[in-house]
Amino acid sequence: MTGASASEVTAALLVVGDEILSGRTKDKNIGTIADHCTENGIRLKEVRVVADEEAAIVAAIDALRPAYDYVFTTGGIGPTHDDITADAIAKAFGVALPIDERARAMLLERIPEGEMTPARLRMARIPVGADLIENTVSKAPGFMIGNVIVMAGVPSIMQAMLKAVTPRLRTGAKMLSVSVRVDRPEGAVAAPLEACQRAFPDVPMGSYPFMDEGRYGTTLVLRSVDEARLAAAKADLEARLAAVFGG
Amino acid sequence: MTGASASEVTAALLVVGDEILSGRTKDKNIGTIADHCTENGIRLKEVRVVADEEAAIVAAIDALRPAYDYVFTTGGIGPTHDDITADAIAKAFGVALPIDERARAMLLERIPEGEMTPARLRMARIPVGADLIENTVSKAPGFMIGNVIVMAGVPSIMQAMLKAVTPRLRTGAKMLSVSVRVDRPEGAVAAPLEACQRAFPDVPMGSYPFMDEGRYGTTLVLRSVDEARLAAAKADLEARLAAVFGG
Repeated sequence: MTGASASEVTAALLVVGDEILSGRTKDKNIGTIADHCTENGIRLKEVRVVADEEAAIVAAIDALRPAYDYVFTTGGIGPTHDDITADAIAKAFGVALPIDERARAMLLERIPEGEMTPARLRMARIPVGADLIENTVSKAPGFMIGNVIVMAGVPSIMQAMLKAVTPRLRTGAKMLSVSVRVDRPEGAVAAPLEACQRAFPDVPMGSYPFMDEGRYGTTLVLRSVDEARLAAAKADLEARLAAVFGG
Repeated sequence: MTGASASEVTAALLVVGDEILSGRTKDKNIGTIADHCTENGIRLKEVRVVADEEAAIVAAIDALRPAYDYVFTTGGIGPTHDDITADAIAKAFGVALPIDERARAMLLERIPEGEMTPARLRMARIPVGADLIENTVSKAPGFMIGNVIVMAGVPSIMQAMLKAVTPRLRTGAKMLSVSVRVDRPEGAVAAPLEACQRAFPDVPMGSYPFMDEGRYGTTLVLRSVDEARLAAAKADLEARLAAVFGG
């Protein structure tokens, strides 16, 4: 599908969670991670959501990790029996999943020694060879093994882990974007947009309809890593729109 | 991964859209479709989000349609050059994508004949052999071909199409769920929950931490298609929790 190039750093996201697939929980992490990748010069190219089933997680990891520079995962690293993401990642990498003494020490910063139940200790199980990712919110760490970054599903904790791991990631040129709002329906702007796209094939252009006070409008979005090229494409598009609709 | 069984009807969702992957648009359709599937006795087992790239869409359709009873798609069926979902679906099915006279007639209910531009007519291109899905909001139809249901990305239009197509879908037993709120952190409820899960292996149980006024709590969710079995599992869980924490 889409691998890495010298100038581009790519990523996929794997969301683990029955609760997202049943509708009980509405995912908020996809949008946060998408924004974060864009801001940091990483192209998020694919997202998958799978159930809390080891085979499904392993299959997704096997498919995604050779295809992208990084694979983020969210969910399934808590203390209960349905938290099986660490097990699945260890299985996908063919490594053991012992209690990690560094992770155990982190848990003990929050949990008194006498309250360290076997369930809580589950959160200190880390695949052999992984680096820990600090969790400033509730201590139980995430981890990074190979190019796979394993984070919690609770949004505030996921965000803390994402912030902690980002300095370790390779990033590429930041994708810039400009928007042009047109108070016309999509069908009316399609021709000038397509002509502009042909003139600037290196600047991906998207068209997003909206409704404002009962009238259709369209937001046109142009993207490039080159600021000057983006400005030139925008000027070209605006000239084409003015030629059709009047300045 | 997870195919169909006699009693279970499964589905996957493919979200097509650069704007979701860049973070510009926050997806709302995954949650809506997840809820709708659960309410209608369809198990949503997997979601994928891919870019507006034909190869990515075709690869996802090829992977998903043999694996699930139904594959829903959202996005990429508008009038502009970046709307390529219909092209990709036709390619995946190996059929042509001509202007469909039924779809053209639907468009003419909203668009005067004199304003029917080539761009707008793109929305009447339907893969050969597909059935149309009515769009009560803006007329341009979705379609269903084989087990693939192709819908718009704009949430209000997607919802209209989902409502229109649902009577044509096979549905299974409705998955019921009950929640038990415990004002204790997840690590404290893990042991009684796991014991209950072992006693009721046919009732999937999930554990979802929350924070309320600065204190950790846990929502335990039990699911089954059998109401009596669900009630029995809930009573068992409550008894186990009372034994640990006091009634």
